[in-house]
Amino acid sequence: MKGDQKVKSPSAFRKYRSAIDAELRWVLAGRKSPLYEMMRYHLGWVDEQGNPSPGSPGKALRPTLCLLACEAVGGSWHKALPAAVGMEMMHNFSLIHDDIQDDDRERRHRPTVWSIWGKPQAINAGDALATIAGLALLGLAHRGIPAGKQLLTHKLMYEACLTTIEGQYLDISYESRFDIVVSDYLEMTERKTAALISHSLEVGALLGSDDEAVIRGLSRFGWNLGMAFQVRDDILGIWGDEMKTGKPWGSDIRHKKKSLPIAYALETAKGKARRELVDIYQEEVIDDEGVRAVLGILEAVEARVYAQGLANEYHDAALEQLRGLSLLRWPRSQLRDMTRFVVERES
Amino acid sequence: MKGDQKVKSPSAFRKYRSAIDAELRWVLAGRKSPLYEMMRYHLGWVDEQGNPSPGSPGKALRPTLCLLACEAVGGSWHKALPAAVGMEMMHNFSLIHDDIQDDDRERRHRPTVWSIWGKPQAINAGDALATIAGLALLGLAHRGIPAGKQLLTHKLMYEACLTTIEGQYLDISYESRFDIVVSDYLEMTERKTAALISHSLEVGALLGSDDEAVIRGLSRFGWNLGMAFQVRDDILGIWGDEMKTGKPWGSDIRHKKKSLPIAYALETAKGKARRELVDIYQEEVIDDEGVRAVLGILEAVEARVYAQGLANEYHDAALEQLRGLSLLRWPRSQLRDMTRFVVERES
Repeated sequence: MKGDQKVKSPSAFRKYRSAIDAELRWVLAGRKSPLYEMMRYHLGWVDEQGNPSPGSPGKALRPTLCLLACEAVGGSWHKALPAAVGMEMMHNFSLIHDDIQDDDRERRHRPTVWSIWGKPQAINAGDALATIAGLALLGLAHRGIPAGKQLLTHKLMYEACLTTIEGQYLDISYESRFDIVVSDYLEMTERKTAALISHSLEVGALLGSDDEAVIRGLSRFGWNLGMAFQVRDDILGIWGDEMKTGKPWGSDIRHKKKSLPIAYALETAKGKARRELVDIYQEEVIDDEGVRAVLGILEAVEARVYAQGLANEYHDAALEQLRGLSLLRWPRSQLRDMTRFVVERES
Repeated sequence: MKGDQKVKSPSAFRKYRSAIDAELRWVLAGRKSPLYEMMRYHLGWVDEQGNPSPGSPGKALRPTLCLLACEAVGGSWHKALPAAVGMEMMHNFSLIHDDIQDDDRERRHRPTVWSIWGKPQAINAGDALATIAGLALLGLAHRGIPAGKQLLTHKLMYEACLTTIEGQYLDISYESRFDIVVSDYLEMTERKTAALISHSLEVGALLGSDDEAVIRGLSRFGWNLGMAFQVRDDILGIWGDEMKTGKPWGSDIRHKKKSLPIAYALETAKGKARRELVDIYQEEVIDDEGVRAVLGILEAVEARVYAQGLANEYHDAALEQLRGLSLLRWPRSQLRDMTRFVVERES
């Protein structure tokens, strides 16, 4: 059955995986405070007692894209490793704090950092990880990157991080609002997700080339890819398979997220259906019955079809960006596969 | 009456104040998200509605020391301004998160950021401020600082920040422990307070000179000054005048802080007194009676005399460091005044 076929993940994920892991471990090596055990736990390397664990690390999407971009423009991807892991650390810092802010007890099939060590220490773990992301970039000096480009990399990473936090601000501020429409959602998602993905590609390209047009082009490609990625994430957050996503059934609805399908329903549902949606979202806790009712409303306005259509539009725009750029053959085809992967993935 | 005389604050605070404020405002200028209003509120520039407020900004100790160090080694202090405000932002980021972690509702006579905007958004405000601290350093490029020194400044700031977070980790981890002795306290304070103050001086010196011996010497001076500062802070946190410190009476005891006087009492009090101290610290809430009982135990072991004695030792060690260094006349005398100020201040 076609629907049951696993979407193939691009081979770039496997190509760079061990180098990304080794660089991450190197950045954290020799650091003794229990803070770093919390990070190693979050990254899936150890269990909560600090023993090595098979874990379930993330996809490493951002560093993989960073290295692919570097290679695509003719650079040596090894040189971009410090920046790639800096981006991955920034992303993971935001996840640790996100889980605290959303009161999420589970991520990637495991208890979240705060649910084990408490919120005050989890705030510290996130803060420390964001700080180490900055220190990770210092490795660029040992890979022959000129000082000017190193400084520009700092700038791009911190701008991406700041934009991500602005997006997180909007996301939380939407929780208490019921006038959220698709354009609000897009404004939030540009910041919360697309910026860091776009900057990961931009930094990779910058470290591999001096050609501003191609650097800018890959940044725009990354922006569209990031938007497509998040829209697909929102679909999985409502209709995804719990076993594959690691998120409990109806997770985003229970968390009253104003994800794309909900923003679309708030914008398009009329009369009784819209009132019911708002009523359910205003309840203290959304139970199974509430989740089913929301799913019914989403179905009535065809929110899933709309969302996947939008993901596909970003997919097409990303490929369109790619077509205009002069890139090496293998990484170009990988970037194309990556684009397809983000809109078809099941987890 | 001598005891009522106000300790004179060194004139360096006034000399640099408006330049520090202007640079801070410049870094935040044009940023529109409500996140930045939260920062402006925390910095004392606006009230909670965003209207200009006379506020009660902090002392700006770290940026003042950074600029003084730059001037002391013969540098132009204007060049160090971006680093000085970076350090101030790092410090303020840690305060915003600290208030969340400690559940503190008041700072500098005003409600804390989280008590107005809630903890999730206050986490974002702190995260964003730490990130902007990194962006603030980019201003060094426009002040003629070579790229290599700019990168070194990034490194020093992020190392200082990471060490501060490690200290904050220890501080929180001590809350549930009753075997804390003075050496544990010192280990925590070196990280939580002395590192950022020491690095502020180190960075200032680095931006004003290439003489490694004087840069290292001012860093060590700053370490001792930072230790003296925190020990005095602990004294004020227990015996300080609420009207001057902005902290409610018995604040550190109510928060069950393992500050120096408490660590000293845990180490030296014997038998019934020690058991009583541990019992009170294990209660859910420490009321006025509990605060008075703890004060009695501290008095019995002469914890205040011990603490001020230790502050004075760090004061002397700082001055000893200063003596060996070749520094310009006015900033040297200011650094000396600063050392006296931190151990005698009432707020």
